[in-house]
Amino acid sequence: MPGTPSLTPLLDTVQSPDDLKTLSMDDLPQLTRELRDEIVRVCSVGGLHLASSLGATDLIVALHYVLDSPRDRILFDVGHQAYAHKILTGRRALMPTLKKEGGLSGFTRVSESPHDAITVGHASTSLANALGMAMARDALGQDYKVAAVIGDGALTGGMALAALNTIGDKQPNMLIVLNDNEMSISENVGAMSRFMRGLQVQKWFQEGEGAGKKAVSAFSKPLADLMSRAKSSTRHFFDPASINPFAAMGLRYVGPVDGHDVIEMAWLMEKLLDLDGPTILHVVTKKGKGLDFAEADPIKWHGPAKFDPVTHQFAEGQKTYSWSNAFGDAVTELARLDPRLFVITPAMREGSGLVEYSRTHPNRYLDVGIAEEVAVTAAAGMGLQGLRPVVAIYSSFLQRAYDQVVHDVAIEHVPVIFAIDRAGVVGADGATHNGVFDLSFLRSIPGMKIGLPKDAAELRGMLREAVRLGGPVAIRYPRGNTPRVPEGTWPELEWGTWERLKDGNDVVVLAAGKALDYAQSAVQGLPGVGLINARFVKPLDSAMLRDVASQARALITVEDNSVVGGFGAAVLEELSRLKLRTPVRVLGVPDEFQEHASIERVHALSGMDAPAIRTVLAELGVDVPIEV
Amino acid sequence: MPGTPSLTPLLDTVQSPDDLKTLSMDDLPQLTRELRDEIVRVCSVGGLHLASSLGATDLIVALHYVLDSPRDRILFDVGHQAYAHKILTGRRALMPTLKKEGGLSGFTRVSESPHDAITVGHASTSLANALGMAMARDALGQDYKVAAVIGDGALTGGMALAALNTIGDKQPNMLIVLNDNEMSISENVGAMSRFMRGLQVQKWFQEGEGAGKKAVSAFSKPLADLMSRAKSSTRHFFDPASINPFAAMGLRYVGPVDGHDVIEMAWLMEKLLDLDGPTILHVVTKKGKGLDFAEADPIKWHGPAKFDPVTHQFAEGQKTYSWSNAFGDAVTELARLDPRLFVITPAMREGSGLVEYSRTHPNRYLDVGIAEEVAVTAAAGMGLQGLRPVVAIYSSFLQRAYDQVVHDVAIEHVPVIFAIDRAGVVGADGATHNGVFDLSFLRSIPGMKIGLPKDAAELRGMLREAVRLGGPVAIRYPRGNTPRVPEGTWPELEWGTWERLKDGNDVVVLAAGKALDYAQSAVQGLPGVGLINARFVKPLDSAMLRDVASQARALITVEDNSVVGGFGAAVLEELSRLKLRTPVRVLGVPDEFQEHASIERVHALSGMDAPAIRTVLAELGVDVPIEV
Repeated sequence: MPGTPSLTPLLDTVQSPDDLKTLSMDDLPQLTRELRDEIVRVCSVGGLHLASSLGATDLIVALHYVLDSPRDRILFDVGHQAYAHKILTGRRALMPTLKKEGGLSGFTRVSESPHDAITVGHASTSLANALGMAMARDALGQDYKVAAVIGDGALTGGMALAALNTIGDKQPNMLIVLNDNEMSISENVGAMSRFMRGLQVQKWFQEGEGAGKKAVSAFSKPLADLMSRAKSSTRHFFDPASINPFAAMGLRYVGPVDGHDVIEMAWLMEKLLDLDGPTILHVVTKKGKGLDFAEADPIKWHGPAKFDPVTHQFAEGQKTYSWSNAFGDAVTELARLDPRLFVITPAMREGSGLVEYSRTHPNRYLDVGIAEEVAVTAAAGMGLQGLRPVVAIYSSFLQRAYDQVVHDVAIEHVPVIFAIDRAGVVGADGATHNGVFDLSFLRSIPGMKIGLPKDAAELRGMLREAVRLGGPVAIRYPRGNTPRVPEGTWPELEWGTWERLKDGNDVVVLAAGKALDYAQSAVQGLPGVGLINARFVKPLDSAMLRDVASQARALITVEDNSVVGGFGAAVLEELSRLKLRTPVRVLGVPDEFQEHASIERVHALSGMDAPAIRTVLAELGVDVPIEV
Repeated sequence: MPGTPSLTPLLDTVQSPDDLKTLSMDDLPQLTRELRDEIVRVCSVGGLHLASSLGATDLIVALHYVLDSPRDRILFDVGHQAYAHKILTGRRALMPTLKKEGGLSGFTRVSESPHDAITVGHASTSLANALGMAMARDALGQDYKVAAVIGDGALTGGMALAALNTIGDKQPNMLIVLNDNEMSISENVGAMSRFMRGLQVQKWFQEGEGAGKKAVSAFSKPLADLMSRAKSSTRHFFDPASINPFAAMGLRYVGPVDGHDVIEMAWLMEKLLDLDGPTILHVVTKKGKGLDFAEADPIKWHGPAKFDPVTHQFAEGQKTYSWSNAFGDAVTELARLDPRLFVITPAMREGSGLVEYSRTHPNRYLDVGIAEEVAVTAAAGMGLQGLRPVVAIYSSFLQRAYDQVVHDVAIEHVPVIFAIDRAGVVGADGATHNGVFDLSFLRSIPGMKIGLPKDAAELRGMLREAVRLGGPVAIRYPRGNTPRVPEGTWPELEWGTWERLKDGNDVVVLAAGKALDYAQSAVQGLPGVGLINARFVKPLDSAMLRDVASQARALITVEDNSVVGGFGAAVLEELSRLKLRTPVRVLGVPDEFQEHASIERVHALSGMDAPAIRTVLAELGVDVPIEV
């Protein structure tokens, strides 16, 4: 309202990275405070990446202060920590649209802003991208700067480590800011993480703070001179031969420094960006920085629900029961019954519903960090040696381990169970997180079994059957909620059998998983239209398919997966083998990347929700009453 | 013949690892010499992994001497270096069947022998498998030992580094033998490799040799005592805090030791296997050890052609021109015309036909080591910054980077060209190397373009068109030879257009790439049968498909890819969209893993060669003359 003083007077003057550069360095701490307040307000609507964005605010301000984006390229690994970057690059007014239909992406997107150097959502890609950009620059004789920001969690991903190996070899000019925030989404795991903890408690870390400026001045001299020149207190700080794996891999290592001292970081970054070759600047940050509650419990505040931006109290929410919870309860119970069960997660304990499991079965639980390939192949090793490993993984992250599923699991038909969460459209997280390809890429793997439970009871039945069957089995279920079922629910379920939910032989709808919900509403009140719960996509129920295809005038398949190579294609292939010519209409996610919006909205736009199914039924000549 | 003294008197007494253990340690050098002679004889037929198997012979003998296989598990990364292991585990008589139909696999296979702990062929999987096995052992309260053998090349793979990270964290008992042979198939690249070279030239390496036994005695004392006890000459040798990345990751590091001193290695391994936690034993070997020619040129002798086992002269061979050569020539020429071209290989310079390119365009060439994920995402970074990167990759290895194709390339439609070699059935290398899934897993990626050239001219036309089009483009071609075409051949080719090769509207055969060769023979002399070069699978030529499907009584699709989700499925999906009911028979590689045999034989068994196509034509009522 007029006359009310702004809460963010300094931030109000910054509409672009150019404006930022007009500030004096001494103004930067004030700016980062205002940015953090703004981020808390933006995130109070719920469902946004609060804690990591608060933690990265200072380093983002420092980077934009010394770099000239978009000419210079700033790459954010995963891209969920970049809210300050979005605000500083002209998107402040749009922040309330984050992750909403038509609004800003929750991650960085090349197509959203020239300042977003990469489109991202999966971890550990920034270093290989930065390597490519730096080499492109050099090949084309250009001279912009490249800086990548990667968290300690993402650094445990194999492709980040492998990219470091090539960066250390090729020595392109680039700055890597290692944002060491002591946790990825789950607590951090792995030896590299332990090593970095070790660095932070070393005496020279404390001693080295503040001595950075002097040491960097020395550092711009030839490396050979360095060790003799550097002061004792800073020797390790900048010693390229110091005992750490980055230096061993050929990267200049600088740090650790306080990742919330924006002035020190800006000063350092400016100097380091002028050096030849690659440099890692190791900065230590706190997720949730500046918000006491979030600092104290960053897992809870990683992506908090709606809260009051002033009191920080959560709004009253309904208790919900998710598919992840249903899986977690089922596997916890099953592990009590079968000592061969072993659960592996690639850094997704909370998201996969495994908190309780990890507590009750700590000796049959492994978190490999963000390393999906290792999760799958470690499971293969376990399966070869008598266990029944379960890899709990999101559909879009299983893409990371496709070859491991083929090569390490499927060729020898090793008994590994894939519990695939977030399968299908996921909504607000958008294109990078939609799990709409797994039916297509898993279906062509010989011997793979694929089930789509319609509810928690079927999930449990499939899980138990998967343990009994052996061989690779995939059970995929969507993001969202499902009714809870009582403990001890273990329905008998023969793998490969479909379930006829509604009689009708004129047109028959075949649907599975999430798509079944839409199909059930669509066929209500239509006497000639049959409905089948096509819960097994591989093998599918060939006998039932032959039966309905022989009688029906047409079939409709509906799936929460790409229409290319998925369930619909499976039906078409089987009909071709059976030499049946029944027309099939294939509904599902079209052959395009789906932008962020609510799940239901994406399904509606995809032409696979209940009204869309009724429209197709009408086109096929079914007498569909007009909706009132 | 009777009376002739055996060339391998000691080896003749060893039919199993148990027999091996009856030898005295002093006999082992003689045994390894006889094993090497045997391997040279076996490999003289050509096409086998000679150099790496010679290099690993000593360490394999040492491992089998101190371990109790198959109870204890010995894992060979890639598995191509394990010929000595096959000979020692009862398969000596079968060695002449290596890679032949019905014979031994060229790699280790779980289904071939209880002594083969993993089924393998792709690099970098052994450590995650070993991690899983060690954790399975501990979870089930068992007590066997686990040892993995991994080359320095395979160690640059991201999943190997990521597995080390978890192994360092979880500290399971296991031995990792790092077989540092100074090269993978191509020259080794990367910072890790440079670091290991550095270790070998250090003074304490030479000094440390021979001092190993004393140091290990000290090593079995508590670690805390170690540094003070170890002699000066061996301090670095066993110092867990020594400056190396393995120690930094939490792994006990021992080495480097002479990988051809079988006695020293056996002695060391026995001690190290009794220690708690994971240990890396770094052994330095020479590929081709024991065969002068092979030591001098291990790339040539990696998988040599037929040679005389006594004189080591190669048999006279025909000069051939492979699809890889055709690609290499095309891209070398195109790079002269277009400064935006940049070629990336994941450690496959020779196999991908890039030797000449890497010489003529060293500044637009990147070998990332065995790290397919980095190859693809570095290409994405280059594509975003104005280059036209070409990722030269084998089909089965592109499986490693499936997510990177989706997430880093396709979402933003980045102009990356995938030159996919060894697509389709590859023959002798078998199930792990068959590239029969790429049409299926690429086809469901939105915006991906897929072409299958019928010859080198079409390959060149597609390559040039791919550069012009931008966006992700895949060009896939098979293992094998193709006629050379003149420099400057750049045929005009509109992406997405098929080519009608033979008129005929009764039944029409749609085939592409390698499958086209079979189809061309099959339709000869059959007047009513049409043939189309379906050279573009995405997008396919919908207009021509509609045209032929509207007129023909039936269609036959033939593809050198799985029949699940591949080209046949694409045709079925498109016909469903076009509401055409023309019957389609889908021929291709069946939904099973194909064992090693000649390419032609696998295609015959798959029911997709010329006789099989003629059989299907006959079933469809075409008057097919009986072959004489």
